[in-house]
Parts: sequence; structure tokens; C-alpha cells
Amino acid sequence: MLHLVSRCSARLFWASPRWRRTYTQGASLRLKWLGCPHHRCSPLACREYSSASGSPEVMLTPERYPVQRLPFSTVSEEDVAAFECIIPGRVVTDPEQLEACNVDWLRSVRGSSKVLLRPQTSEEVSQILRHCCKRNLAVNPQGGNTGMVGGSVPVFDEVILSTALMNKVISFHDVSGILVCQAGCVLEELSRYVQERDFIMPLDLGAKGSCHMGGNVATNAGGLRFLRYGSLRGTVLGLEVVLADGTILNCLTSLRKDNTGYDLKQLFIGSEGTLGVITAVSILCPPRPKAVNVAFLGCPGFAEVLQTFSTCKGMLGEILSAFEFMDAECMHLVGQHLHLTNPVQESPFYVLVETSGSSAGHDAEKLTSVLEQVLNSGLVSDGTMATDQKKVQMLWALRERITEALSRDGYVFKYDISLPVERLYDLVVDLRTRLGPRAKHVVGYGHLGDGNLHLNVTAEAFSQELLGALEPYVYAWTAEQRGSVSAEHGLGFKKKNVLHYSKPPEAVRLMQQLKGLLDPKGILNPYKTLPVQA
Amino acid sequence: MLHLVSRCSARLFWASPRWRRTYTQGASLRLKWLGCPHHRCSPLACREYSSASGSPEVMLTPERYPVQRLPFSTVSEEDVAAFECIIPGRVVTDPEQLEACNVDWLRSVRGSSKVLLRPQTSEEVSQILRHCCKRNLAVNPQGGNTGMVGGSVPVFDEVILSTALMNKVISFHDVSGILVCQAGCVLEELSRYVQERDFIMPLDLGAKGSCHMGGNVATNAGGLRFLRYGSLRGTVLGLEVVLADGTILNCLTSLRKDNTGYDLKQLFIGSEGTLGVITAVSILCPPRPKAVNVAFLGCPGFAEVLQTFSTCKGMLGEILSAFEFMDAECMHLVGQHLHLTNPVQESPFYVLVETSGSSAGHDAEKLTSVLEQVLNSGLVSDGTMATDQKKVQMLWALRERITEALSRDGYVFKYDISLPVERLYDLVVDLRTRLGPRAKHVVGYGHLGDGNLHLNVTAEAFSQELLGALEPYVYAWTAEQRGSVSAEHGLGFKKKNVLHYSKPPEAVRLMQQLKGLLDPKGILNPYKTLPVQA
Repeated sequence: MLHLVSRCSARLFWASPRWRRTYTQGASLRLKWLGCPHHRCSPLACREYSSASGSPEVMLTPERYPVQRLPFSTVSEEDVAAFECIIPGRVVTDPEQLEACNVDWLRSVRGSSKVLLRPQTSEEVSQILRHCCKRNLAVNPQGGNTGMVGGSVPVFDEVILSTALMNKVISFHDVSGILVCQAGCVLEELSRYVQERDFIMPLDLGAKGSCHMGGNVATNAGGLRFLRYGSLRGTVLGLEVVLADGTILNCLTSLRKDNTGYDLKQLFIGSEGTLGVITAVSILCPPRPKAVNVAFLGCPGFAEVLQTFSTCKGMLGEILSAFEFMDAECMHLVGQHLHLTNPVQESPFYVLVETSGSSAGHDAEKLTSVLEQVLNSGLVSDGTMATDQKKVQMLWALRERITEALSRDGYVFKYDISLPVERLYDLVVDLRTRLGPRAKHVVGYGHLGDGNLHLNVTAEAFSQELLGALEPYVYAWTAEQRGSVSAEHGLGFKKKNVLHYSKPPEAVRLMQQLKGLLDPKGILNPYKTLPVQA
Repeated sequence: MLHLVSRCSARLFWASPRWRRTYTQGASLRLKWLGCPHHRCSPLACREYSSASGSPEVMLTPERYPVQRLPFSTVSEEDVAAFECIIPGRVVTDPEQLEACNVDWLRSVRGSSKVLLRPQTSEEVSQILRHCCKRNLAVNPQGGNTGMVGGSVPVFDEVILSTALMNKVISFHDVSGILVCQAGCVLEELSRYVQERDFIMPLDLGAKGSCHMGGNVATNAGGLRFLRYGSLRGTVLGLEVVLADGTILNCLTSLRKDNTGYDLKQLFIGSEGTLGVITAVSILCPPRPKAVNVAFLGCPGFAEVLQTFSTCKGMLGEILSAFEFMDAECMHLVGQHLHLTNPVQESPFYVLVETSGSSAGHDAEKLTSVLEQVLNSGLVSDGTMATDQKKVQMLWALRERITEALSRDGYVFKYDISLPVERLYDLVVDLRTRLGPRAKHVVGYGHLGDGNLHLNVTAEAFSQELLGALEPYVYAWTAEQRGSVSAEHGLGFKKKNVLHYSKPPEAVRLMQQLKGLLDPKGILNPYKTLPVQA
């Protein structure tokens, strides 16, 4: 364990300094993996498991995918000197230190950047971008590098601009719950910060131990609290963004309502660093619920999962805060790779229901009624309920750590799809038949309450043949149902060319025009989000 | 009464056909004004009171405000013929019929358009805009014409493009609650439609009897449910928009999550028809709450109003659905002009608290505890609580009909401001001293839970001197508190030049660039939203 700690801290320090803190808490981390008593476990806090154990080098992205370098300049010694003038002591060129920022955490894409910049202020980001724009240097903005679609690492030799040292809370208003912070704050630390003040963050996701707030906003992360607290498009109140030419755009208001002109911050939410670099975020935090209950249920079929959802929506109403599902194969994998124990009898499907409310008594009464109803009607075959934090976290770990279990199962083909809820699982069944023994596992889980399926296929290694069997099949299937080919992960590098499955040509054209307006030289996170122009 | 009905229906038919339906229900409307038993009263459903009773002609906008006509073409007979080809029988040129669409409902601005177009489909809107773009004809998109800032009527002779006949529900999904409708659907009718299916609209506002869904989205309307269900930026899932050149942009998805590229619909939400014409809306409706309770309370001071709010937030948590306040002068005006009765003893401030939840028993228990606490602690001097719909509506009418009462008091100077909640009422007090007897009334009310003050000043008639005493004073005061000079009403024609009080020059410049990109000829709702360029 300690060996891993020191290795990781050396390799990951530059990519995300918060990592080191996590890893030096090795002992408690070990506990976390077995069901941490203090907080839910983050799969990304453990991601080096798969990469640190002698796994082969990750192929360079241009070797695996057909992509051509665009005619940007190459970083020269003069550029490095200029950067050193702007952020003395925070320009990294050591190849070993650069390695972790060049590879995504899934170990599926790898760039070859020669320089990592670690600014601390928006002014420094502005000066860096002004220099890059003038010199025609491409830039890869990087947060916690927890993205799922290859958007967070360079494709070629882009300058990596890390938000890791922009990690200060700027202000918190303890009546309104409005938090203003720099972009590099780690979600889990913000979560702890506001919880101490009786609020919670409006978003929560498995990657919370590493992901940065700025990165969350840049990808419009959804996650586990979306059902209750909605999209970042509603909860983010303001942003500070540095544009491609170095202009600082200060839209960092802390007002719940502001209808003065176009809502510019929306342009940057979900634009994956291609239109500007988010440097600070103002976000509305909901009050911390006084009572949180979790039920973990086994269902005999997907139809029963759907009916359980309808029952929960109707009977729990405003206190329903999460409705997640996973199939039996997911449970098998978290058991096999993470040694987590299934708390209920084996079932084809499992459901996690969370309530958050202001009265422990009322909430327990509501949830108990629901459980009686679903058990008596046969929608649920077995279930367990938790009110104390330790058990709540153990139940959540079963759902949250699926990503981690999958990454230990081999190479993972990941799809993150929105579908009409009644068709949500059909694609998984269909793919199992289609792929047969070519796939190790085909699993489905996700945010059922939001119509969001995480479809994952594992194999011993990456294979073009399997990829060919999956794509464009999965996308065409989704488009036929008028679904979205990326519900919450974004397009990044890997999905940029499938945009047309979910958006008409007029929309794609307008996106290109917006990119042209905001970043005429195309230096910000190139090769991402927008399809290659014909 | 019947006389008014027939006069109104003649004058208003073309602007908003739903009006006629409202007005031909004259008898029940009369009842509504005295406290309608069937549904909350809409102040805008009664607005002709002020205008139909022989009040003087409204000045033409260019006579009251310094504004120059831009070099657009003038509508020719050939243009009218071309429009007639596109929408046969739905081109209106009769001056009497045009009158109601040229004047805003506050009777504060007046255009001189010679033609009103009433398309039924997006395809027709597309053909109209293609023609206007080619001919360089300016266009004023118009919904229910219920705007507060002069954005919904022409300034000069812009072609009026009404959404009134685009009033079909396209689809409703009775599990997810996702409604897809044309832009001209009236909010109150949609509300009724989804309520019959056990859902509610996520927004509600005084103008609901007339306002169109497309117009609501175009102004990013806030309203009475904002506190609970959040902004339209979160609840609107998709839009269909026709761009200035006639391109139909179909982003009308019905998915809770869709992270495929830039979220283009956000550009049009709150852009007041200056970037495109919204023709259809997809919106997420929350389940209809099983229990709604309203308490109406009198508070001895504004400090007690704030403490009552904190108490409600803490104790009601997730069931708190509205927290509105009004001052004693508001109560005086609704009594004087609308003969509504104050249900509690006279107080300096009044508060309306609404809860919406899934259990009548639990909710009543929570609200009763709150009321005991605020009464016992002296935060509230008197109060009344309602659970049956009739009384709920009567209590709501006191708050909702303030706008109407004000409009009967004389000329109204309206300000809609976001401020830090603890400073919310200071501006009202300050202005009373500043204006002295020059103002008839200076009142403050609004959505306290959202930090949104409606500051209104009435006078016998419009006066440049009073305007000079109010502006820029109110805006500078707001800017000093880092507030917003338009919380929910938008900028429209009247506030466009005060944008810089709430946004930095870099933001204003980017807005201008976006306008240039999407509407290079500037034909869409000119003279609105964006300040005149130096």
C-alpha cells in the first residue's frame, strides 16, 4: 500500500496536487475501499490501481485514432522562458512529471505535450493565453483529468494549462448558500467546506476526490444529485472565463436572478475548454438536508425497476434525491474486483433510492410506506435501508465504484447515453447478443431518474474489431430513439465525430461559427468537441 | 362590464386571440376581480381597465425617448402581397386592429407598425424571415405582449410577427412530465393542461392569462415558482428557433440530459427575440404537489421579514415553494383600487409563504411548527393560513394583483432589481426620502426568496423630471451593491442602455458580437436589449 502511495505521489503530483494529499492518507484510504466510515469512496481516488501495476504503455492518440496535427507552432525555448516570466517556478518540462497529464485516467488516450503550466490567478492565465494566441500555440486546459471522453489531455503537443493551483475559496454567503471559488478547487473539498456550514454542493459524482469545479462546469457534469438539484445550467450563477486572446470575461455575479442581456456563462458551461478557460465559479448550494436515507433494492426485472421508479416519484415526491440502477453484472464486477458485498439477495437488477429531507421522522415514514408497497406488490424481491452515515456510504459505494471495477476488468468501451426511460435497458440486451463472446462483459447502470444509461463493454484489450461492432451501431440505435449520444460526459476527443447523431447540421454549423467567433485561431483544446470540418 | 368586454375583444383580438376567450367570459371575470373562486386572478387579464376608460393616447416611443430609426426598408405593397402568399388571410394591415399590438400593456411605449403577421407553423415563420432578411425589413416578434420593459412592441414600423396562432401542444409524456408545445401557447392554458395530467408548469406569473410560453422563454421569465423549481435555463429542455435568415434550428429535444456540444438553446433563452424567433419549447414539468398550503403573515419590520425567511428555509426545507413579500403601501393600493381585503391586522410588511409537498399531514405539521415559532418569537404579529384552494387563491391575489393595482394608480415607473437580500428594502426607504411629494407612491414587493425586489413609483403622469430623479440613481445604487438592474424582466427597449451597470465592457462587447453573428443585418427586434453602439 505504502509503495503505491509513494509511486503515485511522484507520478501524479503535477497533474493534480490534491492527489498527493489523498494518497498520503493511505491507511484511511485502504479503509475507504472496504467501505469507508467517513465518506463515500471515490473510484478515481483509486484509479492508479489499474495503471500502476505494470500495465503496458498507453498508445499515443494519433497512433490509435486517425487525427492530423493542425499547423500550430511548436513550443520553443523562448516560449518556455516567456512562461517562466509569467509564472516563475511553475513551468514543468520534466518528461516524467508530464507523463500523468498526458494520459487520461482510463489510459485510453495519450498526448505528447512538452510543457505544463500551473498558474495561480486569472491574470496569469490571461497572460499565458495572450502569449499562446500571439504565438499560435495550442492549449489543453486541464482540471482533475477525470474526463471520460479524452477531452482532458492533449492529443499532440498542446501546452497543458492546469487549474490545479487555482484552488482557493473566494467567498461563501452563509444565508444564501452562494459559493464563489477558483476553478481548481476539488469537488470533494468544496463539499466538505460547505457541509461544515450546513450546505451541500448541488452536484456529486464518483470522481469527486479528484475532479475540479472548473472542469465540472466545463463538461456540464451531471452526476448523482441531478435528479434533485438539476443541471449546472441552473445552479451555476456566474463564471469568470479567460478567452482565447487573453481577455478576462468577468461574469462572476452571485445573484439568483440576472436578466441583463445574453447569459454568456452558458456558452462556457459544457464547452469543454474549447471556447474559453474557466477560472472561477459562483454556484448556489442547497441547504444540507437534515435527514438522508438510502434503500438498496433487488428487482426481478427491468419492468419492475421502472415501476419502482414511478412509485418512488409519486410517494416520495420532493424528498427523492437519487434513483440509480445497476444490473447483475455490475454487482458481479464490484464483488469480483473490489470485494464489495451484495447486501441483498441476488437479483437481475438493483436499485438505489436516496431521500434527502428536513424531517427525519416524516422522511422515514414516507420511505417505509414506499418499501412496504414495492415489497408487497412484488416489484422488489429484497431490500435493505440505511439511515446511519456509515451504512449509507457502504450502499452508495456499490453504485459509485462500478466505474472503478470496470476499469480493473480490462479495456473499457464507455457509452453515456440519454434514452426514453422505457427503452433504457434494451440496448444492453441487444448488445449482449450482438457482441457474443467478443466482449468480456456488457453492463448497464446509471441515473435512471434522468433517463441516463451508462453502457460499458469490457474486453481484454482495445480492439478495432470490437470498436467496429460497437460504433456506429450504438449511436445509430440511440439516434433512432431520439436519444443523446452523450448525456453527461461530453464529446471530448472520442465522441466529437458522432455529434451529428444528436444534432442537426444547422446546429453543428452554428457551433462551428461560435468557435470561430470566440477562438478564431482554434488554439483552445483543439481536436475536441467539434467534428472535423469537411 | 359587458360594454368593456365587447370593446376589449375588438381591440385585442389580433394581438392575442386568447384574450377574446377571456373577455367573453365577462361574468366570471368580474367575479375573478373580486376574488375568483376558481383560479388565481391574472392582473393582465384585467389590464384594459386602465386603458379602456378614456385615458389619453400613448405617445409614440420616438417622441418620448431619444431613438433614431435605423435604415431598414419600409413595408411595400409587394411585401404585403408576398406575406399574403406565405400566410393567406393572416396578414393584418387594418390600423384599428394594429393598435393593440403597437402599444405595450403598461401604455408606456407605442410603435407605428403597419403590418401584423400571424403564422401558424415554423415553416411559415421561416419563409417570413427569409423574405424580411432579403428585403432588410425589421421584425418585432410578439407573444402575449405582457413585457414590462417595452420589448414586445415595435419602436418604429417593424413588422409584427405574432406567435398567437402557434398555440398547439405537440406532445406530453405522462411519466416524465415533458411537455413540447408551440411558442404561442398561453401559460395558463398549459398550466391547466398539465394539471389535468397531474403535473404543474415549473413557472407561474401574474401575466399567465395572456403571456405566451415562447415569450416567457425569450425573456427568461422568473415568477412565483422560481424559488422551488429554478430557472427556465434548467427546466427548458429544448427549443426550436427560426434564425434571422430563415434557418430553422431544431434543438427541440426532450431529454433531461444532453451534453452533445454547445447548448445552443441557452443563447435564445432571455435574448428577447433579438437572436432568433422561438417557435416551439420542450419543458420539464414537475409532478403536481398533493398538498399546497399558504400562510399570509404580517411582520413588524423588514428585519423580521428576513428572519421569518431564514426560519422558513430552515424548517420547511424542500416543501417551501414561495416566499413573497409586500409592504404596507402595496396592501393599501390593492385595497383602494381592487377592493381586496387585508386578511390580517395592519402591519408594515406582509409575507406570503407557500408550501408544496407530497403529504398533506406532514406539510401541515411542518408549517404549523413554523407559524408557532414565528408568532411566539414576535417575528410575526398576525397571520392566517389556508389549505383549501379558494382561500389559497384569495391570499395569492393580494400579492399577484399588485401590478394591476399600481397600473390603476397612475403612470408607473417600474424597476426589477436583484440585490443582496439584507439590503433589499433599503432602496425603497431611500427613494421615499429622495422623491418626497413628487411621487404618489413608492412601493416595494417581490420575490424575497430570490433576492428580487420590484420597486415601483407611481405618479399622476409620466414626467421627465421624475424620471431624472430616478435614473440613473436607482441603477447606480444597485450597481454599488453588485446587484442586477434587471432581475427577471429583461432589458427590452427601456433598460437597454443601463446594461453596463451590471455587465463589464468585455461582456457587452461579446453580446454585440453574438448579435452580429446571428443577425448580421440586425433585423430582429432592433432597438432592444443591446445598448446603442458608440
